[in-house]
Amino acid sequence: MTVVAGIDIGGTNMAGALVTDDHELVDRAKRATPVGGPEAVIDTVLELVRGFAEPPSAVGIGIPGPVSDGVVTRPPNLAGWPARVELGPRLTSELDVPVEIGNDANVGALAEWVAGAGRGSRFLLGVWLGTGVGGGLILDGRPYTGAFGGAGEFGHMVVHAGGARCGCGRRGCIEAYAGRAALEGSAAMAVAGGRDSALFEIRDAKGKDRITSSVWAKALDQGDPLAVELLDEAVDAVATGVAAVVNLLDLDRVVLGGGITEKLGEYIADRVADRARRGFIVPDRHLDVSIAELGDDAGIVGAAALARAAMVLAG
Amino acid sequence: MTVVAGIDIGGTNMAGALVTDDHELVDRAKRATPVGGPEAVIDTVLELVRGFAEPPSAVGIGIPGPVSDGVVTRPPNLAGWPARVELGPRLTSELDVPVEIGNDANVGALAEWVAGAGRGSRFLLGVWLGTGVGGGLILDGRPYTGAFGGAGEFGHMVVHAGGARCGCGRRGCIEAYAGRAALEGSAAMAVAGGRDSALFEIRDAKGKDRITSSVWAKALDQGDPLAVELLDEAVDAVATGVAAVVNLLDLDRVVLGGGITEKLGEYIADRVADRARRGFIVPDRHLDVSIAELGDDAGIVGAAALARAAMVLAG
Repeated sequence: MTVVAGIDIGGTNMAGALVTDDHELVDRAKRATPVGGPEAVIDTVLELVRGFAEPPSAVGIGIPGPVSDGVVTRPPNLAGWPARVELGPRLTSELDVPVEIGNDANVGALAEWVAGAGRGSRFLLGVWLGTGVGGGLILDGRPYTGAFGGAGEFGHMVVHAGGARCGCGRRGCIEAYAGRAALEGSAAMAVAGGRDSALFEIRDAKGKDRITSSVWAKALDQGDPLAVELLDEAVDAVATGVAAVVNLLDLDRVVLGGGITEKLGEYIADRVADRARRGFIVPDRHLDVSIAELGDDAGIVGAAALARAAMVLAG
Repeated sequence: MTVVAGIDIGGTNMAGALVTDDHELVDRAKRATPVGGPEAVIDTVLELVRGFAEPPSAVGIGIPGPVSDGVVTRPPNLAGWPARVELGPRLTSELDVPVEIGNDANVGALAEWVAGAGRGSRFLLGVWLGTGVGGGLILDGRPYTGAFGGAGEFGHMVVHAGGARCGCGRRGCIEAYAGRAALEGSAAMAVAGGRDSALFEIRDAKGKDRITSSVWAKALDQGDPLAVELLDEAVDAVATGVAAVVNLLDLDRVVLGGGITEKLGEYIADRVADRARRGFIVPDRHLDVSIAELGDDAGIVGAAALARAAMVLAG
């Protein structure tokens, strides 16, 4: 058995583990993501890897930003990072084992493909409904990262040209309807405008400072009309996007993950599947829409899968 | 030098030629596409191939419909075709040389990639603005056809959810704004509603029964406000779609072709490029937007490129 390490670098935390051939996680470790730039993050990666019970044969890393050939460009959620960081080459020379870097959303799709809800697919889109909306692709049986490592931005496909303002500064993106931050903003505007909703009371009762996925789940459970309406718009936007991607790329599977999907499960997945199907230009096209299985571990599992690929490439 | 044949099967005509290693067309031939089903089309392909000055080493065919492993499924513009026709295997056994079949829009993208405006690209979208709006993809240096051979339906990506009715029966597709048929319908509705426009007078003066691409070009030349407005909406829809595809697939080139692009050239391409760029989630992403170079020959050149690939695969 070969043991590799997977490290999931997030905006807040870094989580890592040794991962077996069977995608089992052993020897987990977690650190706060250091602020102040790449050097501190590199040090923390080294500390995590050197702290594992045995030295891994290769290391894979998922990071929130475009990645091409180990070079990370402008990660939007990592404070103090310059335009270009040669993270892969730096870590390879420090650790003296193969190191592979991938974008976190792409790495999540890879994880679900090798060990989760995407097993057996060859043409897969992973959609992550979190604070924003991310995506990752497996095309023709291979992870797809595009010309410059920036592929997978499903959340910034426009489905309502000229529509709702998105956090990215443009209008009508899927994320402007289906991202948790956008949903919260829409709820706040509606309530400020006089709409009745239990969303904010549920938030307060739960002691949260945000309308988290569990707040949405409870409001939906109570049949809160505003929550139902906003989640319906979110489902519509995601389904319109999924249909667009299926028409363009002729996929065989879509995996839906992220916080809201985890809390609402079939409620979201069934509706996305039904509405997306209405948009297929080939009407009887077969498409599986599945709920992600790996949860927060997807980042580590996918990073470990990258590490294995790097080992194969290194020979 | 190896000579292969390329055959472009359209809804109205079938055009073929022998094609050299340098993508030069020699010994062209053309037939009306027979109606009544695949057998008559197969006979016409055989007649074309057997009529060439020398027997080709392989044959490639472009056809308007989804194609997977030589099997054509439900070609919408070929009268009398059943759900499934094993065109590739049938022709291979009749001709005794390798035969490869591809979807016409994908074949057009392949042609521009090997011999036209897409040379040197590895991640390319071809967009064909004709009666409808078609598309074809080259991803990671290979023609991309998807899980079931139906990829490339750029025209049926929705950019205005709930918007204009499309010929496909859905709403808000790019084709509903940028296809020639949709543009003509919008112009007719506007004029019926009292808008002033020279479009129909130009059509009549040219002795056309449709608002052809050359009618649009003349109206634009005259500064006809309705023509300017409708073409502007068309450009917006295409640019929104191009930006969505670039965000999803991280392309390095888009090639625009088809009748309207040929007549309006830079007018369309420059506007699409400018507006698409505003929609890129990675703001300084480099993307070439080029005008197709091969015109009506793209179908034959691309089919011949398929034939060469089939030869290589056959060994």
